[in-house]
Amino acid sequence: MDGAWRPSGVVTLLTDFGHADPYVGILKGVLYRDAPALRAVVDVAHELEPQDVTAAAFVLRHSWSWFPAGSVHVAVVDPEVGSERAILVARAGGHAFLAPDNGLLAPVLAGLQGADVRRLDVEGLGLAGGSRTFHGRDRFAPAAALLAAGRAPETLGAPFAGWRRLALPEPRPDGGALLAEVLWVDRFGNLVTNAPGDPAALPARAEIGGRSVPFVGTYAAAEPGALVALVSSFGLCEIAVRGGNAARTLGLGRGAAVRILGR
Amino acid sequence: MDGAWRPSGVVTLLTDFGHADPYVGILKGVLYRDAPALRAVVDVAHELEPQDVTAAAFVLRHSWSWFPAGSVHVAVVDPEVGSERAILVARAGGHAFLAPDNGLLAPVLAGLQGADVRRLDVEGLGLAGGSRTFHGRDRFAPAAALLAAGRAPETLGAPFAGWRRLALPEPRPDGGALLAEVLWVDRFGNLVTNAPGDPAALPARAEIGGRSVPFVGTYAAAEPGALVALVSSFGLCEIAVRGGNAARTLGLGRGAAVRILGR
Amino acid sequence: MDGAWRPSGVVTLLTDFGHADPYVGILKGVLYRDAPALRAVVDVAHELEPQDVTAAAFVLRHSWSWFPAGSVHVAVVDPEVGSERAILVARAGGHAFLAPDNGLLAPVLAGLQGADVRRLDVEGLGLAGGSRTFHGRDRFAPAAALLAAGRAPETLGAPFAGWRRLALPEPRPDGGALLAEVLWVDRFGNLVTNAPGDPAALPARAEIGGRSVPFVGTYAAAEPGALVALVSSFGLCEIAVRGGNAARTLGLGRGAAVRILGR
Repeated sequence: MDGAWRPSGVVTLLTDFGHADPYVGILKGVLYRDAPALRAVVDVAHELEPQDVTAAAFVLRHSWSWFPAGSVHVAVVDPEVGSERAILVARAGGHAFLAPDNGLLAPVLAGLQGADVRRLDVEGLGLAGGSRTFHGRDRFAPAAALLAAGRAPETLGAPFAGWRRLALPEPRPDGGALLAEVLWVDRFGNLVTNAPGDPAALPARAEIGGRSVPFVGTYAAAEPGALVALVSSFGLCEIAVRGGNAARTLGLGRGAAVRILGR
Repeated sequence: MDGAWRPSGVVTLLTDFGHADPYVGILKGVLYRDAPALRAVVDVAHELEPQDVTAAAFVLRHSWSWFPAGSVHVAVVDPEVGSERAILVARAGGHAFLAPDNGLLAPVLAGLQGADVRRLDVEGLGLAGGSRTFHGRDRFAPAAALLAAGRAPETLGAPFAGWRRLALPEPRPDGGALLAEVLWVDRFGNLVTNAPGDPAALPARAEIGGRSVPFVGTYAAAEPGALVALVSSFGLCEIAVRGGNAARTLGLGRGAAVRILGR
Repeated sequence: MDGAWRPSGVVTLLTDFGHADPYVGILKGVLYRDAPALRAVVDVAHELEPQDVTAAAFVLRHSWSWFPAGSVHVAVVDPEVGSERAILVARAGGHAFLAPDNGLLAPVLAGLQGADVRRLDVEGLGLAGGSRTFHGRDRFAPAAALLAAGRAPETLGAPFAGWRRLALPEPRPDGGALLAEVLWVDRFGNLVTNAPGDPAALPARAEIGGRSVPFVGTYAAAEPGALVALVSSFGLCEIAVRGGNAARTLGLGRGAAVRILGR
């Protein structure tokens, strides 16, 4: 355990609710209703493909640590809403997490020592009523409000060892190379892989879609239009086009294979 | 009246301004400029179709009550901006509302006892200057800031009995069935109707697009890909595809007829 | 100089990061981590076309002044991220600004007397580490947090006279008319030009795409479907269709020529 729980007053939201419907706003209404001292609610992402748990797991894994210690991270991509699947409440790395038990939280927990994982005590907290279709509003938000108001994660449920492990795909050695995979395509068309990278010790090149792509230190080091590899702000190898869109240029996206060489 | 006005410090925004333009941000700038003690501004929805007053009325009707008592709800879908149409300032259910007098607020007011509805005294409040094209910034935001700062709704204008009634379409009996209509299609392709539903006493089935659709308690109770009916988180009957998109599956959207049977 | 720097606690964000990726949320995480007394972060716009510095300059120029004095405006559209281009920290009009030195800030500074412009001292502030691809997170956000926490802009770097001037296109006289250009197309399809306008002294008409278009005072003064010109909420001449979309109706967009006559 990390000692006393001291909330930062910041709650983050990661969902597949989109921006067209009032679902995110309603969830925030419940947070402000139930946690009068709430400092801020921050949107991490809401336009994930509906029910894309893997994408949510990737985004949560690479975003939570930038928030102040004591933040509460609420992630609701939940194809099994309304079923008996557990809601996890975890404390790890000085932060608190709420997510359905579908693997969404697994990459975060796998990367942290001493994570405390519990099953949210929906009955005991009086959250068993409400809808069977919008647990974000009726269960996640009230529980997050409790955490943001100072209630420690370990008081919200009993330890739960059986949470679902679901690793993100890992790169694997392939001869002298590393065989990686594109896990995320961002708005700029950058293809972000699962291969970790060190900006101070760049690999020589990457192979993708039959192309050999040199590593550079930064977008600005490449010629306009050049296809390059670099280490992303997530600390992962990525493929980019300077001033362009690598996903469109290559016609590739999530799941595409990338070989990293010379490391 | 509900007694003294005690603002929660939360202001909600519902507009058709979209996210590409700076209009929503500018409106928030005025709120923070004019209400130093503002606690938070929450976006309910901004991607309504331009000038779709009916959609705005539906969303406002089903979202406001989830916010803390004393919240100020600003709804600006306003095809007649710049004309002599009134701006309504209302107090109802312990909340305050600002909206153009075009029916947007009518479903909220129709559902609440003892609503106090006034015409915003634009001249008296010194808001008659400013643009004739962006009342959100020049009239709604300054008035909302006053409400959030503690000024009671009933001090912002004279009683106005003639506000425009514009009911959302109501379901009607049709033999032993209820003939309903789709009022909202959400991001998941769920077709939300105007027929209220009780999760504890589900109807037997719905008919839509020539299909007979069984009611289930929750998405997770259906087989993947199954077309089902259920009671939405709004307390309304809806048509959904488990793990899919009912609107696309059926090729139907707003205005589609739905018969609810066995209730 | 404007005297002592008194932050409003409001930070605004204008980027080309979009809403699908977690970049904006992560940047906010750093703000809340580094500035415990932060009051609010307001999104101005994030869906600018990737690397569209001109659009960012236009939006910033027309939005900053609506926020409370002492606000910090962070604008990150930054094709040269990772290069040696400077980051500007400026104080002007009672507000603070952070932007890459690529012209983004130039229209704001050109319009204000006594602007103080400096080059952010990345080394001296301990911000030289971190990624070379996400300066928004690693440089702009920590610097903005300092400003929001009360540190004066002029303590964050040395004066920098050589900032890049990049004017927005200006209208020019053309016989008795003014030859203007469309600089922004908003969600409603309104074509906003660079010609300033005075609602109290409207021009007679505009010419665009071979059409002659009368000026009106407000959208509501036009017949439904009518093509009209008016003075936008930015104080600029714009072309609109009442209840419609002028950009679609005319098949025109940014860069289109507009002649303003009878002024």
